[in-house]
Amino acid sequence: MDNTQSIKPFLEPESVAIIGLSRKTGENHYNALENLLSYGYKGRIYPINPNATEILGVKAYPSIKNVEDSVDLAVIVTPRSQVPGHVRNCAEKGIKCISIVTQGFTDASDEEGKRLYKEIVEIADSTSCRILGPNTFGSANVFTNFSSSFAMLYMQRNPVGLICQSGMLFNCVSEYRFVGKGIDVGNICNVDFSDCLEYFENDPQVNIIVLHIEGMTDARRFFNAARRITCKKPIIALKTARSQQAATAAQSHTGSLAGKNEIWEAAMKQAGIIGVDSLEELVDVTRALSMLPLMKRPDIAVATFSGGTAIMALDGLRNSKLKIGKLSESTRTKIRKMAPDWLAIGNPLDYWPMVMGSDNRPRLMRDVMEALLADEGFGGIIFIQIVPTPEMGQEMGQLLTELVTRYPHQPLIAAFTGPYNFECAKELQAEGRVLAFPTPERASRAFVRLYQYSEFRLSLSRD
Amino acid sequence: MDNTQSIKPFLEPESVAIIGLSRKTGENHYNALENLLSYGYKGRIYPINPNATEILGVKAYPSIKNVEDSVDLAVIVTPRSQVPGHVRNCAEKGIKCISIVTQGFTDASDEEGKRLYKEIVEIADSTSCRILGPNTFGSANVFTNFSSSFAMLYMQRNPVGLICQSGMLFNCVSEYRFVGKGIDVGNICNVDFSDCLEYFENDPQVNIIVLHIEGMTDARRFFNAARRITCKKPIIALKTARSQQAATAAQSHTGSLAGKNEIWEAAMKQAGIIGVDSLEELVDVTRALSMLPLMKRPDIAVATFSGGTAIMALDGLRNSKLKIGKLSESTRTKIRKMAPDWLAIGNPLDYWPMVMGSDNRPRLMRDVMEALLADEGFGGIIFIQIVPTPEMGQEMGQLLTELVTRYPHQPLIAAFTGPYNFECAKELQAEGRVLAFPTPERASRAFVRLYQYSEFRLSLSRD
Repeated sequence: MDNTQSIKPFLEPESVAIIGLSRKTGENHYNALENLLSYGYKGRIYPINPNATEILGVKAYPSIKNVEDSVDLAVIVTPRSQVPGHVRNCAEKGIKCISIVTQGFTDASDEEGKRLYKEIVEIADSTSCRILGPNTFGSANVFTNFSSSFAMLYMQRNPVGLICQSGMLFNCVSEYRFVGKGIDVGNICNVDFSDCLEYFENDPQVNIIVLHIEGMTDARRFFNAARRITCKKPIIALKTARSQQAATAAQSHTGSLAGKNEIWEAAMKQAGIIGVDSLEELVDVTRALSMLPLMKRPDIAVATFSGGTAIMALDGLRNSKLKIGKLSESTRTKIRKMAPDWLAIGNPLDYWPMVMGSDNRPRLMRDVMEALLADEGFGGIIFIQIVPTPEMGQEMGQLLTELVTRYPHQPLIAAFTGPYNFECAKELQAEGRVLAFPTPERASRAFVRLYQYSEFRLSLSRD
Repeated sequence: MDNTQSIKPFLEPESVAIIGLSRKTGENHYNALENLLSYGYKGRIYPINPNATEILGVKAYPSIKNVEDSVDLAVIVTPRSQVPGHVRNCAEKGIKCISIVTQGFTDASDEEGKRLYKEIVEIADSTSCRILGPNTFGSANVFTNFSSSFAMLYMQRNPVGLICQSGMLFNCVSEYRFVGKGIDVGNICNVDFSDCLEYFENDPQVNIIVLHIEGMTDARRFFNAARRITCKKPIIALKTARSQQAATAAQSHTGSLAGKNEIWEAAMKQAGIIGVDSLEELVDVTRALSMLPLMKRPDIAVATFSGGTAIMALDGLRNSKLKIGKLSESTRTKIRKMAPDWLAIGNPLDYWPMVMGSDNRPRLMRDVMEALLADEGFGGIIFIQIVPTPEMGQEMGQLLTELVTRYPHQPLIAAFTGPYNFECAKELQAEGRVLAFPTPERASRAFVRLYQYSEFRLSLSRD
């Protein structure tokens, strides 16, 4: 199957039928049509509900059979017992893509769920339908204002394609709406990770692929695809279900076989996939890959307002290939001129004694940072600063925005501590230029993962 | 030396002299007197500046010798060359406690810094003065509105005593102003970790002791004290400088010998100290110990709006003694009645299919959570929910506040994801009742550390 064509209707449907759509709308009713209208989706929509003639002003149909036009995508949200019948009707109508949002199949406690799932698989096998789910948010594409989910999504036009087993990730962590396109494979029927991966491989709007994997059956095909794709686009993966108890829970969540951690880790590494350890790190690393150029070398410079935090940043580099680099003689000379005599000019560089009480702090800080950014001995710079007031946040925002504009090829990550650190980082994220984390260790870990991918890409170009 | 008496003036001075205080005030001038006045410190203050007769309306003196009253604490902020002379003057005047804020001693690049440091140590050895620092923020006590630091501090009346080697930690991470009292031992002269530990041991306003350690010389005395104190109060420690490069940096930051990681980890564990891995975890675990009762058993229940996040929570428990527990028959029966037939009633418990679209979601969620909280088979509950809107944040805040009020003996941690997760967690933190983190893994890791201390305390009561 050519996935570029066969998966496309999930992300770019020109028409969608929502089978089992409720007439109830408003808060607490999670009406997918209401969401679609609020996003401004421009395609044709066919609500299917035998008890309605229209919903939210859109003409409703008693059955998919009553829709005369062609339909790209059917989204099924009926009770589970009705699902196989609707899938059959969709197949007969010639609909090629079906998302089954309904829960209660392999994730259910009873035998009936497993029987119904089997019935759906049999229909899929006997047609050319692609069936996403069941137990899925379906798909979402912020570029076409489309989502099949009952949940209101908060996405952004980022070149990030997500493939997950939990639709929750479409929204994810607050400070960063990181997903531009999302596919929730749920309790996989016949659309799996590899299919979606191959689709995003050829999607010019997707530069970074993010995976949330509980488990999979056809890992060989997946890793073959991944090995090819990582040469062109980074793939970041959070593999969950890593303990025996978590693996058991995953099996009742998505029916997935979690597999052994060690094997996953080794295989991901070999395929050039950037594996991360937590939801937090997934978002951190996606932000880093989105905003920073690749690193040219493993030497890090740390500029800090406080010695203690710089040491935390170094701790964050441990067990990695990154190391604290040496200032070049010319960099040292430049900075020496700005510093009190007694101050050790090294790396980490404690710039605070140079700038505290200065009448021209912004200028001095800029000069110090420019000296570091211009030093070609470094592959990345960590800048650590406390943000005690909103005004300091603004000053730092201006400084860093100017620096990343002037030195676009040198990766720079800020670590902000103090009362306004979160607000300052969030504001800079919204502007999309400066990457900031709330602790030194998170800045370091992001560099560790960025270097892992940078080195992988460098090794390819050397081959 | 009796540390309860000899350290006390650092935290509760009735009078303080600031030697070398600048006449410059306002933004960017980091004037310690200005800070003290803004906090509302009630003790006597003696600015020492030969070029001023008053600073900010407070009478200034040319030298400490000109102050006729007794002085509890001297804070020295002069250039480094003048420091030994001022220390001598203070000793001669009979001042027992001196904080040397000035930098440029063992942290400096030159021999002069080391010479000056030696001179200070010699004075200390020949008198009964306690000297904090040099290169220190000094001390701060929010209960007496006192701080010796040039930096404006943002603290809160929490029963948390901090001993650190970086004053930055007095403020720390934004969403939680966690320190009530702080001592920055800096480049230790003759006030070290053990002295401060023993002081907080007997301080009724301190229930939790937090340490940030780069290294120390007299570790034997420290661990002896810690072993005694952890039987009464939890000690949480972030040991930094854990790589060779970080250890080298620590030596130039605080002149500390970092020591081997493995030895530190084993010794901390044996002493009942809760070791944490990062600045983020330090704050998370301090919040957990501050707000939650101890755990009675290692069995965790997870209630979640999404199966995928629950599996992340389980991943967060791996490599620990915690495990996912079993619902009792009575709990299962209670919840079964509220759930759709097909829904698996287990642990993790996916409550969303029960409450989605319900007209009485708050009541249903409360009933589900009460069933879990009343189940004595659990030692802690993780509650995972997306917060897509401020209204949902309020609903969850009310629900959880009610639950922790009704079940004060059962530790409960919320993990909020989604667009308003941070705001919701921050608001709840300000009210001080409900503990919430922005990812499932962080909730789990907090429970892992809480159980580590709970088990230590339980083992003592069994002895």
